[in-house]
Amino acid sequence: MTTVTRVCVRDLRFPTSRSLIGSDAMNPAPDYSAAALTLETSDTDWSGHSFVFTIGRGNNVQVAAIEEAAQRFTGRDADGLCADPAAAMRELAWDSQLRWLGPDKGVMHMAIGAVVNAIWDLRSRRAGIPLWRELCQLSPTEVVDQIDWTYLRDCLDPGEARELLEEQAPLRDSRRACFEQLGLAAYTTSPGWLGYSDGKLERLCVEAREAGFSLVKLKVGEDLDSDLRRLEIARHALGASVDIAVDANQRWDVETAIASVRAFADFNLRWVEEPTHPDDVLGHATIAHAVAPTPIATGEHLANPVMAKQLLAAGGASVLQIDATRVGGVNDLLALIMLARKSKVEVIPHAGGVGLCEAVQHFVYFNAVCVAHDTAPLSLEYVDHLHEHMADPVTVTGGAYRLPTSPGSSSEFVAGVERRYGFPDGTEWIS
Amino acid sequence: MTTVTRVCVRDLRFPTSRSLIGSDAMNPAPDYSAAALTLETSDTDWSGHSFVFTIGRGNNVQVAAIEEAAQRFTGRDADGLCADPAAAMRELAWDSQLRWLGPDKGVMHMAIGAVVNAIWDLRSRRAGIPLWRELCQLSPTEVVDQIDWTYLRDCLDPGEARELLEEQAPLRDSRRACFEQLGLAAYTTSPGWLGYSDGKLERLCVEAREAGFSLVKLKVGEDLDSDLRRLEIARHALGASVDIAVDANQRWDVETAIASVRAFADFNLRWVEEPTHPDDVLGHATIAHAVAPTPIATGEHLANPVMAKQLLAAGGASVLQIDATRVGGVNDLLALIMLARKSKVEVIPHAGGVGLCEAVQHFVYFNAVCVAHDTAPLSLEYVDHLHEHMADPVTVTGGAYRLPTSPGSSSEFVAGVERRYGFPDGTEWIS
Repeated sequence: MTTVTRVCVRDLRFPTSRSLIGSDAMNPAPDYSAAALTLETSDTDWSGHSFVFTIGRGNNVQVAAIEEAAQRFTGRDADGLCADPAAAMRELAWDSQLRWLGPDKGVMHMAIGAVVNAIWDLRSRRAGIPLWRELCQLSPTEVVDQIDWTYLRDCLDPGEARELLEEQAPLRDSRRACFEQLGLAAYTTSPGWLGYSDGKLERLCVEAREAGFSLVKLKVGEDLDSDLRRLEIARHALGASVDIAVDANQRWDVETAIASVRAFADFNLRWVEEPTHPDDVLGHATIAHAVAPTPIATGEHLANPVMAKQLLAAGGASVLQIDATRVGGVNDLLALIMLARKSKVEVIPHAGGVGLCEAVQHFVYFNAVCVAHDTAPLSLEYVDHLHEHMADPVTVTGGAYRLPTSPGSSSEFVAGVERRYGFPDGTEWIS
Repeated sequence: MTTVTRVCVRDLRFPTSRSLIGSDAMNPAPDYSAAALTLETSDTDWSGHSFVFTIGRGNNVQVAAIEEAAQRFTGRDADGLCADPAAAMRELAWDSQLRWLGPDKGVMHMAIGAVVNAIWDLRSRRAGIPLWRELCQLSPTEVVDQIDWTYLRDCLDPGEARELLEEQAPLRDSRRACFEQLGLAAYTTSPGWLGYSDGKLERLCVEAREAGFSLVKLKVGEDLDSDLRRLEIARHALGASVDIAVDANQRWDVETAIASVRAFADFNLRWVEEPTHPDDVLGHATIAHAVAPTPIATGEHLANPVMAKQLLAAGGASVLQIDATRVGGVNDLLALIMLARKSKVEVIPHAGGVGLCEAVQHFVYFNAVCVAHDTAPLSLEYVDHLHEHMADPVTVTGGAYRLPTSPGSSSEFVAGVERRYGFPDGTEWIS
């Protein structure tokens, strides 16, 4: 029997605030960070890796939460955990003492997600395949059994979810072959950070077009005049054939969102992202109806499937931007993908940060191969920073992600990363 | 100048699981706990006290979060913090790096609330009056200025909030005199824990009636037949003159909630509490409309004012059960009280646990004196456990709370409590 022998959680912080990488209207100076978990086992060939992405201060709190959630599995049968991740998820999410700290939201729920994800990582490593393939090998019934349906049945019941999966099952092989050959469209956020000058924005837009990207996303929300000027620059540099999306990072209230999105009407935006507070389901619905047909996108701060259920039922978003480390791990993400399918809403994940592109790509492929009704509009955010810290970094060429082939969930950091970026003792932080 | 000299956060846990005090359908064995903050100042006569209530595991994570949020105030001017708690709230809640860990929810938001509450505690101690009097001395404009309106204006704007407060202002003195004379109705949850036998339930119901309580609350949600049997026992023991409320502690989905509440119709319940997941605003609205006129109550797990705004706008609750330590402190609680007033929804807080009766009573009095349209239906939960650990425990006589008179927010624990209940080194935890 293989047992879990040790839980190791590291506080990794990358000083991105020094170059304003990642600056937007809500987050002027983030230090992209990760609370990185390793579940070590008695078989030294195998360990499970995952992380929660944060943007600096408080990453130590996230580390403490992961330690608290993970420690119960020390000494436990790793084979059993890998055979039934849903049972591990239930044990953590329904631990009433931990649940009080959410429920199902914030630091503790993200910690639970990290533990669940490390188990899935271990499972797919031992199977010798990338996580997306592990997920695509699940039968419709097995997918349904991984989801906690307790509070979701009024929108989608397990039987209907299974039918939706069975409907796509005959297409799995051809879809997979197609993505293996062509990759998946990447869109880029790299040109559009608020901290960049107009000249840098223009130059990076030209580079993005030349690199083959078909969609560029700009940060907005600080000042409407400035937003409109930057949109003009981007449209001019990109030409008519590259789409533009914008991201307000929650800066508007409902009324301001409606007025701003209407002011952007001439730019024919692919979507407007995070127009207001992510908890404001009804606010999103009001905005979406007022600015139709401009699509509203949100999801990177959506805490759990119960919030997604309402957002989708209320028509608050037509693009669901799942995040690999915000919710309770793989099992919650499967629920989000199925809820989106039920509502015929596109799943186009949030990525960027550090490690998020690597971690979330597996869910894009699962959705594209096994769930999505239409794969044509699917794409995945790409930001060309910090990939050198990941042991299995993404490959993006010609504006497309290439499917990962290494075993696991691509969530492991490179060996020794903590010597430089460990907080507070890494060389980068000791001045 | 008085400065903040030290932040001290203690992990206090009371082994309530050993006697099944606090057992309900969702929380079978809680160990009532507190992450207790003291802001020490350069004037050794004055310190600010607050806490976050949890139910055991993870209290250490809550401690770490409070330390992270509070540490920035070490060395800062205490007079300035006390003069403008809204500025401290803004500094914490809009710190983008901390905000990423919520936003506005879970462990980090409760930690921010603890820091804000300690500042309010310090302010009212230095003024020599209890917090409820400090709040009742604020002018309508000062109340409005303490609230972050960023995401609330589509439901209630500051001008309308000020008008609502000005409408009640002439009644403040007479209302306060009335509550000082008669106290505030207490209702009791002590008889109704799920872990108690039928005989104990019956005995405690008789005792509650004889003690003068006019409302008793029972836990339900584990099994409908058992719920109905226990309701029969309670009704028989209480007679027709004592109201009954029930609390499902989130155990039902939407459909089960509707069926269960309809099965309870003959008991003429005062309210049905937490019928489903606290994030399910639209689910609450569906339930409330389906079971009308039975009132639906919720709020103890409501993360922030944005959630409350939607719950009230959708008609999801007719009783709002604010909790003293769940949201971002006094400033968020003022927002919740004003949102409830706008929707003409009763504010009847959640209490119990350890310290929650003490902490939340101040908001009941503020609401009753300065805000509520009708004070007749107001009451406050009372559970007769663990008050001996509080330095300024509540006084409940003849079924009524008596107004606290000591300076501060009644949130300080007795000196030396950590020697026995500190975790993991207190004598109660070292076996």
